[in-house]
Amino acid sequence: MSETGVTAGIVVIGDEILSGRTRDINIQQIAEFLAPLGVQVKEARVVSDDQDAIVEAVRAMSERYDYAFTTGGIGPTHDDITADAVAAAFDRTIDIREDARQVLIDWYAKSKTELTEARMRMARIPDGASLIDNPVTGAPGFQLENVFVLAGVPKIARGMLEDVADRIEGGTPVTAISVRIEGAREGDLAARLSKLAEAHPEVAIGSYPWFEEDEQGGLRRGVALVARSTDADALEAVRSEFERFAT
Amino acid sequence: MSETGVTAGIVVIGDEILSGRTRDINIQQIAEFLAPLGVQVKEARVVSDDQDAIVEAVRAMSERYDYAFTTGGIGPTHDDITADAVAAAFDRTIDIREDARQVLIDWYAKSKTELTEARMRMARIPDGASLIDNPVTGAPGFQLENVFVLAGVPKIARGMLEDVADRIEGGTPVTAISVRIEGAREGDLAARLSKLAEAHPEVAIGSYPWFEEDEQGGLRRGVALVARSTDADALEAVRSEFERFAT
Repeated sequence: MSETGVTAGIVVIGDEILSGRTRDINIQQIAEFLAPLGVQVKEARVVSDDQDAIVEAVRAMSERYDYAFTTGGIGPTHDDITADAVAAAFDRTIDIREDARQVLIDWYAKSKTELTEARMRMARIPDGASLIDNPVTGAPGFQLENVFVLAGVPKIARGMLEDVADRIEGGTPVTAISVRIEGAREGDLAARLSKLAEAHPEVAIGSYPWFEEDEQGGLRRGVALVARSTDADALEAVRSEFERFAT
Repeated sequence: MSETGVTAGIVVIGDEILSGRTRDINIQQIAEFLAPLGVQVKEARVVSDDQDAIVEAVRAMSERYDYAFTTGGIGPTHDDITADAVAAAFDRTIDIREDARQVLIDWYAKSKTELTEARMRMARIPDGASLIDNPVTGAPGFQLENVFVLAGVPKIARGMLEDVADRIEGGTPVTAISVRIEGAREGDLAARLSKLAEAHPEVAIGSYPWFEEDEQGGLRRGVALVARSTDADALEAVRSEFERFAT
């Protein structure tokens, strides 16, 4: 398919994801946020709470793609080492910064909560970074070069993305359409799909089998056909073809 | 924490995950399957349906960790290129293999479904690989060197893991315990948690804030404390400490 040219990589940070304890939803959330801005996520990495692992992944995503996003590891506890690791990835110094300190002082005064020494850790921001507003719990994220550092809790990450949108220079938005073919099997559609993909090189075509139990406990199956493109006309042509598959 | 020594990496393959259309659950599923075998997932990568991207990720995970797992891209359609990419990663040839062909013939005869040319693509297995049984939809996965190639549909991937278990040489299983502290805020616990982590270097301690709406629409909050270790006594000591945090 035609490339939009604007790309992003994601680094999900946290032992809780790799251990299976928590299922990540930030990759999906960030991808859905970026698509209408014309930015395509090309790669995502999940790494543990380990400085070397974070530094390597952040550098790789920052170098390869136009934008990189990290989630997780910016809270007040000992295992929150993302800010220090991102500073290290860009050879920047890091310390408690006055602007971030003021954000915390104001937030905790308003919420009548003690600003402990541990919480003040969340004002550690790398030299040269700009703050990202956190409308949910106050403690800011930050942007350093092309890397956006967000919280791991999905609702907080989502809130922070609101302050990221206007910093993104997007490409042509990619639109997706999908058609669900009840009762179909992938293997029966494969040859026709392959021809369709060849005929429309500007459209990325994927097929995804699904299985569901119905209310009587029986099994239903089908295939979801998905097409993505920056070209709306080509996409509509493919949609018509998809719909013919159902008959 | 003490290392078990047996590690794994995961490669999730598929544009549908990176576009946000589908939320991955295979990382969690594989991690939960491996934990009782004493294997820790150290890294996961999500890459697109692109040969170079798959080759790079498979090589990296295979070289760095004791085992690597891939999910996705082994169906019958044009965008299913995982088998070819894994063959390329290990410089192996690939073609329709007699043993896999026979598996498909038997399966489709039983299910009275036509074995189309497209479906026969699923018998393409790299030279030197051993098949992995697929009890759900027939078409096999395969193991090449230390890489296990599984389907992307989570139920099929889970079925295939049953045939993987006895090929894994595990380490000491890691056990996890978790304690939920209602009403707590991470910043209030951080200093004590930090001391606890220092006192128990053999235990990995994490803290994860949560927020929930209650039935009246009000907000409840708290922190989940999680400890993981191969040392059961140390883990129980940490659990007792966690429980004191609640009071």
